[in-house]
Amino acid sequence: MTMRSFKGGRAVLVIAVWTILGAGCSGQAARSDADLIKQARELLGALPAVMDSADNPLSAAKISLGKTLFYESRVSVDGTVSCSRCHPLSLYAADGLPRSVGNRCRTNARNAPTVLNAAAQIAAHWVGNRVSVEDQARQALIGAASFGMPSFEAAEARLRDIPGYAALFNRAFPGEPEPITAGNFGRAVGAFERTLITPAPFDRFVGGEGKALSDRQKSGLNDFLETGCANCHGGPFFGGRSYEKFGVLEPYEMYTNSAEIDEGRFGVTKKDEDRSVFKVPVLRNCEMTGPYFHDGSVGRLSDAGRIMGKIQLGIALEDGRIGNIVLFLHSLTGRLSAEALKVPVLPASEAVSSHGPGPGSGAGLAPDENLPAT
Amino acid sequence: MTMRSFKGGRAVLVIAVWTILGAGCSGQAARSDADLIKQARELLGALPAVMDSADNPLSAAKISLGKTLFYESRVSVDGTVSCSRCHPLSLYAADGLPRSVGNRCRTNARNAPTVLNAAAQIAAHWVGNRVSVEDQARQALIGAASFGMPSFEAAEARLRDIPGYAALFNRAFPGEPEPITAGNFGRAVGAFERTLITPAPFDRFVGGEGKALSDRQKSGLNDFLETGCANCHGGPFFGGRSYEKFGVLEPYEMYTNSAEIDEGRFGVTKKDEDRSVFKVPVLRNCEMTGPYFHDGSVGRLSDAGRIMGKIQLGIALEDGRIGNIVLFLHSLTGRLSAEALKVPVLPASEAVSSHGPGPGSGAGLAPDENLPAT
Repeated sequence: MTMRSFKGGRAVLVIAVWTILGAGCSGQAARSDADLIKQARELLGALPAVMDSADNPLSAAKISLGKTLFYESRVSVDGTVSCSRCHPLSLYAADGLPRSVGNRCRTNARNAPTVLNAAAQIAAHWVGNRVSVEDQARQALIGAASFGMPSFEAAEARLRDIPGYAALFNRAFPGEPEPITAGNFGRAVGAFERTLITPAPFDRFVGGEGKALSDRQKSGLNDFLETGCANCHGGPFFGGRSYEKFGVLEPYEMYTNSAEIDEGRFGVTKKDEDRSVFKVPVLRNCEMTGPYFHDGSVGRLSDAGRIMGKIQLGIALEDGRIGNIVLFLHSLTGRLSAEALKVPVLPASEAVSSHGPGPGSGAGLAPDENLPAT
Repeated sequence: MTMRSFKGGRAVLVIAVWTILGAGCSGQAARSDADLIKQARELLGALPAVMDSADNPLSAAKISLGKTLFYESRVSVDGTVSCSRCHPLSLYAADGLPRSVGNRCRTNARNAPTVLNAAAQIAAHWVGNRVSVEDQARQALIGAASFGMPSFEAAEARLRDIPGYAALFNRAFPGEPEPITAGNFGRAVGAFERTLITPAPFDRFVGGEGKALSDRQKSGLNDFLETGCANCHGGPFFGGRSYEKFGVLEPYEMYTNSAEIDEGRFGVTKKDEDRSVFKVPVLRNCEMTGPYFHDGSVGRLSDAGRIMGKIQLGIALEDGRIGNIVLFLHSLTGRLSAEALKVPVLPASEAVSSHGPGPGSGAGLAPDENLPAT
């Protein structure tokens, strides 16, 4: 397995550390906490407090608007889709479905990745066809199986029809003559998502608190590092930094029962070597974000881990080891801040001042077009 | 318009107060705050702190479980429906659609009423075919256009498949040999909904704070009381206490552009006098819960108010008066508690101990059935 594209030039360091430390910790032999913490810190690193971006400077007003828009369903073609529909925070911003179902029961091409701890990745989506969380949110507005709006302009018109948004966008994007745009929808939602970081027991461990993991979890972490999982699932989010072939040693569909073969990143680059290549998903909260893989074809984390060992690393992980690795992965299940978890209240559909007869309402009694109500 | 069924025997008092006070406050004449507050207090009453029920005693564990279940989509047939899908708290527990869309894009028969301030009503749903919020939540599990499960047993099996629920149900229903039942799903969700009360500016006014309403809102309140709106939309929730014919003076469909005629409560009682009879909806938060009426056929609150004046009371409300009434209704837009608004974290689909090969997984690599993942 090769490491194709690392952000931040860590690849060399990772390989070097791996080579130096790998030889010294074979088998199930117990290691000192200090030694394990040291290696984990070097390969994985500390969780940042926020995933900021020079392209989208964060502000309280922008984050707040983004959270509001994250719950906004009136901007979808049939009024049933918001970001939160496929990324409910109650399920760690995944939806438990193999592939999400959007407007008018349309099924998405791939499994909905969680948007927690996602903003620092090299790209959004499984094949890197969205360059950032901002781009992903914006494009979702016109996604055929997500919001389904016919155009960005139509989505913007929906937002402008909700009177309360003018003030909220003005505050988030001061000085812009018309801040209610699809681009700013993406920037605001992206800003909110850049705050969605979930500190977990593992972070206490890597911070030096040896007792934050059980002995079995430490053994699982040791295996995770030794067998090579961390080569791709490295960095503070355990992945999201490279594209890799899924099925290095054997075709994945032999193990996943996938209903169809996905061309992967080939669809973006048209390069033959990118067939079956996908972005390495982040593993934080993977306990909560099944089913697994780009098509959600595997329901259990233990099965997913066993498949990865076999077709990526050529290792048959027996039940005891896979059990420990899964227990270790549970130590990546974290918590969002209370602020992130507080449901926002959306602005009303009607303006306070619009209490006269509606347009085209004849005697003032006929309804406005109201699917969805705006 | 007659008052058919009042809960709590307030009808006589309401009529008496109405008769005594009604004569003294005609037209648009300004009234003293004290006078208006006194009448409002008598006709509407103070908002309770909780809507408890002897049939479903509240406990912290039950309310907490109920909130968790409110967000649970894995108990629906296609994994896309939770209570929160049609009752998102971000939109005041309505969804902005004329009629909600549930599993497999099935459309519900009527507009989804908000579940805020709803538990104290005489019944749930528009025609009283659900006796309580508990009954409504339970029946939703097998509702063809809501969760769509084939049976209560199938829904219970889904809940039992999520390992974390055993402890949560045990804590909420102590001493029961098998607490994970559809009935207890309803009781828990109902318990949560019994806490969903939204204090609003109007409550400060009726509590004696004259400045909580603007002059136009006070004028609107005066009209609301004088014209007879409060005859049906009375009590602390502004409705939910009686069934009434929709279209006392003229057929409603002449004004609402309804696509079809709804037989109303006749469907429940089979009595001819119950044709076009519906439960009077609560008006709290009506600013936020459009579109209006049983079929969501009217998008604007001002139009809804004008129609009600015309076909229920025989009054043509001119723009100025309807505008004031709508502004007054905005004073009923309240806020949920921070606790109610905090998104719960759902239990994981897999048990911590289930890391061996899954059932029927052959070499331990084949996926479990995973639509939705359990």
